[in-house]
Amino acid sequence: MKIKASVIGGSGYTGAELLRLLLGHPEVEIIAATSERYAGKLFSEINPNLIGITVSSYEKMDLNKIAGSSDLVFTALPHGRSMEVVPQLIEKGCRVIDISGDFRLKNKEAYKDWYRFEHKAADLLQKSVYGLCELNTKDIKKASLVANPGCYPTSVILGLAPAVSRGLVFEQDIVVDSMSGVSGAGRTAAEITHFCSCADNVSSYKVGGVHQHIPEMEYALSDLSEDTVTLSFTPHLLPVSRGIYSTVYADLKNDIALDEAIDTYRSFYKDSFFVEVLREGEYPQLKAVIGTNFCHLGISVDLRCGRLIIISAIDNLVKGAAGQAIQNMNIMNGLDEKTGLDSPALYP
Amino acid sequence: MKIKASVIGGSGYTGAELLRLLLGHPEVEIIAATSERYAGKLFSEINPNLIGITVSSYEKMDLNKIAGSSDLVFTALPHGRSMEVVPQLIEKGCRVIDISGDFRLKNKEAYKDWYRFEHKAADLLQKSVYGLCELNTKDIKKASLVANPGCYPTSVILGLAPAVSRGLVFEQDIVVDSMSGVSGAGRTAAEITHFCSCADNVSSYKVGGVHQHIPEMEYALSDLSEDTVTLSFTPHLLPVSRGIYSTVYADLKNDIALDEAIDTYRSFYKDSFFVEVLREGEYPQLKAVIGTNFCHLGISVDLRCGRLIIISAIDNLVKGAAGQAIQNMNIMNGLDEKTGLDSPALYP
Amino acid sequence: MKIKASVIGGSGYTGAELLRLLLGHPEVEIIAATSERYAGKLFSEINPNLIGITVSSYEKMDLNKIAGSSDLVFTALPHGRSMEVVPQLIEKGCRVIDISGDFRLKNKEAYKDWYRFEHKAADLLQKSVYGLCELNTKDIKKASLVANPGCYPTSVILGLAPAVSRGLVFEQDIVVDSMSGVSGAGRTAAEITHFCSCADNVSSYKVGGVHQHIPEMEYALSDLSEDTVTLSFTPHLLPVSRGIYSTVYADLKNDIALDEAIDTYRSFYKDSFFVEVLREGEYPQLKAVIGTNFCHLGISVDLRCGRLIIISAIDNLVKGAAGQAIQNMNIMNGLDEKTGLDSPALYP
Amino acid sequence: MKIKASVIGGSGYTGAELLRLLLGHPEVEIIAATSERYAGKLFSEINPNLIGITVSSYEKMDLNKIAGSSDLVFTALPHGRSMEVVPQLIEKGCRVIDISGDFRLKNKEAYKDWYRFEHKAADLLQKSVYGLCELNTKDIKKASLVANPGCYPTSVILGLAPAVSRGLVFEQDIVVDSMSGVSGAGRTAAEITHFCSCADNVSSYKVGGVHQHIPEMEYALSDLSEDTVTLSFTPHLLPVSRGIYSTVYADLKNDIALDEAIDTYRSFYKDSFFVEVLREGEYPQLKAVIGTNFCHLGISVDLRCGRLIIISAIDNLVKGAAGQAIQNMNIMNGLDEKTGLDSPALYP
Repeated sequence: MKIKASVIGGSGYTGAELLRLLLGHPEVEIIAATSERYAGKLFSEINPNLIGITVSSYEKMDLNKIAGSSDLVFTALPHGRSMEVVPQLIEKGCRVIDISGDFRLKNKEAYKDWYRFEHKAADLLQKSVYGLCELNTKDIKKASLVANPGCYPTSVILGLAPAVSRGLVFEQDIVVDSMSGVSGAGRTAAEITHFCSCADNVSSYKVGGVHQHIPEMEYALSDLSEDTVTLSFTPHLLPVSRGIYSTVYADLKNDIALDEAIDTYRSFYKDSFFVEVLREGEYPQLKAVIGTNFCHLGISVDLRCGRLIIISAIDNLVKGAAGQAIQNMNIMNGLDEKTGLDSPALYP
Repeated sequence: MKIKASVIGGSGYTGAELLRLLLGHPEVEIIAATSERYAGKLFSEINPNLIGITVSSYEKMDLNKIAGSSDLVFTALPHGRSMEVVPQLIEKGCRVIDISGDFRLKNKEAYKDWYRFEHKAADLLQKSVYGLCELNTKDIKKASLVANPGCYPTSVILGLAPAVSRGLVFEQDIVVDSMSGVSGAGRTAAEITHFCSCADNVSSYKVGGVHQHIPEMEYALSDLSEDTVTLSFTPHLLPVSRGIYSTVYADLKNDIALDEAIDTYRSFYKDSFFVEVLREGEYPQLKAVIGTNFCHLGISVDLRCGRLIIISAIDNLVKGAAGQAIQNMNIMNGLDEKTGLDSPALYP
Repeated sequence: MKIKASVIGGSGYTGAELLRLLLGHPEVEIIAATSERYAGKLFSEINPNLIGITVSSYEKMDLNKIAGSSDLVFTALPHGRSMEVVPQLIEKGCRVIDISGDFRLKNKEAYKDWYRFEHKAADLLQKSVYGLCELNTKDIKKASLVANPGCYPTSVILGLAPAVSRGLVFEQDIVVDSMSGVSGAGRTAAEITHFCSCADNVSSYKVGGVHQHIPEMEYALSDLSEDTVTLSFTPHLLPVSRGIYSTVYADLKNDIALDEAIDTYRSFYKDSFFVEVLREGEYPQLKAVIGTNFCHLGISVDLRCGRLIIISAIDNLVKGAAGQAIQNMNIMNGLDEKTGLDSPALYP
Repeated sequence: MKIKASVIGGSGYTGAELLRLLLGHPEVEIIAATSERYAGKLFSEINPNLIGITVSSYEKMDLNKIAGSSDLVFTALPHGRSMEVVPQLIEKGCRVIDISGDFRLKNKEAYKDWYRFEHKAADLLQKSVYGLCELNTKDIKKASLVANPGCYPTSVILGLAPAVSRGLVFEQDIVVDSMSGVSGAGRTAAEITHFCSCADNVSSYKVGGVHQHIPEMEYALSDLSEDTVTLSFTPHLLPVSRGIYSTVYADLKNDIALDEAIDTYRSFYKDSFFVEVLREGEYPQLKAVIGTNFCHLGISVDLRCGRLIIISAIDNLVKGAAGQAIQNMNIMNGLDEKTGLDSPALYP
């Protein structure tokens, strides 16, 4: 019997990506997708890629109806909105995969510091499982609420997990330089996402340690390592629609040969279908993961400076959002984690 | 039992696209893919989208071996090279889907005029079936040699077929303005395909009725209509990797209401899964067909000028090449034509 | 003594482009630039290309002050807004170059049909001079109100003027296929101009003879020819920030050799610095005119179909808006028309 | 009297950019531009942006002729080729601005280590002046051979000079993450610069401390600071034609307030027209410097991690090559450094 799944917030970029992937998932029946703005409109009117694929329409959000008919609900709402909806769904017995940041941090104070809001469902913070699939499979299996990781954190945590858990690098001198495609800024029209503002351009934002994804990265990595992890993180905006490309610099505790570093990474991810550790001298191409749930990792050692350099590429809307959400759903339902998620990228 | 398929010329853009699609096709086993330049290399070294998807490698071309082990061979060679290989494959009993232009025209003289070469396998011209799936299903079913249509012709013929076959427009006053993504120029590095030559740019080439796709369009459309079709065709190069976007102008024999024109088109394509006739006032978005085998058609009537305007969008590497080739394979093998071809595009 | 010039509507894309060009113009002093939205802000806060170039700021619109201190005012307001401002400026004795569509058509009824508004300053329609510099130099010299041409019309009229004025083509069977960069849609954020809506995409709009630039083209061309000109016009949206690229198809009255056609065009434009007729076999590259006031024309003859094909490329914000406005200013002030306008494009 | 200048290697991207800028320079007469590949062709056949701007042609390289007729020669040849030509020009009495890497390092051994060649004109290494204009004005004034800085080094050295010369940061724990437009890879067609390889993509190369620009950066910065500078440097390839965007991370010796850091930078560059230190909270937009000789610097302090973060944007072909070369020429000839270099970028 198929999983009965619904999407709340189905017309943003993440919601639309969930629909694209769920429509092709062999074990899922989509019960409903809600959109405040587009209720009554066909999915395909808003997302022309779905023309010929489905004739379903968006609905207004009716939590009772959705909870009553769905096994599992994806909430793809803006930060601060999810915490108003998720508790009701949990209470009504639904399992929930929340793609906002609202349930990723364990500490309600951190929401004040980094998200600038007072958390309204703080009791769920301890209950929620951080859904970075490659690291938390066991907990995800039995979770009723999964906090789906952020896009930047997914790329960075996958890039650093082997190094910090194996104690290769100093935990407190890490630099993360990341770039994101424009879809990361969401679907809402704004001057900053105007084609003419982004094309042929690169810009930076939230520079200097203020991005709300920093605590998420530091908490998840500290869990894996002996010491607390702190890192500098600078996000850049790229002239591409999709993708996260992170270059991570960490000081080595001891010299390590490149092939040994690569072996450590390969060994760490030997059971992870979606993480590919590239060969010596090869580095990720962003394009090679677009539209897919893969994370490509390239490893280098700068012997002159005693640094490990890790380059990590994902699709922000797939492994960084909707794809990992479905991977979480697969794990929660005892399916092979790659079910419905194994299509390659386009190249060229 | 799965279809045993091979690809000759597997490392060009079309060959690589065949591999991408065949690797996900549930009824196909890939026997071999050849590449003169990359024999011995992994598919995924040349096509980074296949990292984690396959560990197969390119081989040198060995026609005996391929013919002996394959049910069906895709030839994805440059124009003029296919005609040297296809006759041997046919002779050895393989069914062949040729993606070059070498078997699309019926008249060997036309090859001198339009392709500037002397045809070396002219006896196969009458035997080959023009593989525009929506128009020639019956013949394709029993074909041993299918000439897979060109990218521009696919977009234009699908756009005009209902109008010329229903006698809506004058056959000899048709204007076709087409744009292509850069992958249409092939994988070989050249100054004209340098990123800096194409980005932020549009250019035109083979203007004035000299492009070799013109006879292909005219012959296929003349077959459908009462009178001989002649058309002006101008190709443009767009700053995108993939896609064909054609705008077609044809003088109406009689006034027609827009909804009636749209109905005519819908009725013509009522059994064609891959052709979508958009609603009144909607026109194709190139992005909505990229990576897919769909053709989106938008219809308009310019009453002031008495013209029917048809806008047609496809992916040049899928419906315009590898995807239609697989659609042909499906038809030849009695499969549902959409097997392995039903993934939607990305959006955004 | 320098020309004292002001810009009303200085923060839209056209207004900003006026500022860029006027700041580098050796014979101009900028008196004021207004912006409702950004009054009080530095030009360079809104337009980061002006950082280090100027420390001037936008002001609120004060027509008395502007008229009292300026010799010449550029109005770069949306259609329908200019007609509320221009009469006052004219009355106060300013010369005005209006970049909206409000004074381009001679017939107030046409505004109802094509722009869907009732004209509020219809008495100025006869007084305004259509500012296509290459065709109307004499009238522009003595004009007090110049209606600066639209971007599409500039590209199309320059492309067709020699052919229709020399009687080479039939006036009533012309097809115009045009593409525009996204800046043509203006600076205001909208879903249609979101980076992710435009990147890797092409779309069409106002298909079927409904774009408001059609009467502007037809009127200007009819003035040059023996018979009334009618044309089909289809605009497309390209994934580039700037540029108009028009391909024009017209049926030849008599056969003409290509070199003769090119000579006719060269002779027509022999005194026009900004119009370049390319050599036989060469066609415009959009990139080669970006940021410049040039129009590149490529000419071809399709002998099979008896058609003249003209390809015309301009920058929509320069020759299609701000640059031509400054060219008009130069002419009105007895300056060399290319003053301040002679920088080449970037390539690559 | 105008400066008589020639360009050796005038058809690569840097050579073509020199021509674009020199053609608009009021104090320069171009004597000759050489191209092995395109001798006899018009500049404008190879660079369509020069259509209508010049009718000059490329010549074969004749050093005697060029040295005899030119005051100053720009050599824009590949690394390793300049050192074969420059000594002859110097000997014949020309002043030379060399845009390759051949005269940037002082130590001939470094060429073996980083460029993998044996230097053939090592005696000139001590004589050449490193032409980073903002730092070496005095020496440049009297130089006969200027080694024009590399594109990455220009962005990085300008970004770090105030911090290292004022002793704000530790010299040996610096991380530099840079991105370049594709024109940095040169004009020659290669698979890596194919439009379809670069579009929608980001990649990395020479990761791990092996790029030949590293010693150039370290030497120039060590000259400014008390201790030797060492840095990790990772270059990325962006899907844009032009631009360098560098994000630099350096550990602060002492805490510093952001406004104080910005003041230090502004004070350092108070006489530098081309370096703009942005305001608090503002960071460079790559687009805002494209086509210009400007360097935009954004400054941030990450107090949590005790790091200074500097973001630096230039156009690789202008401030990173041809523009700085002309700035050097201006300084060598006693002209205002911004002569012929003061045009703003396009925006949008």
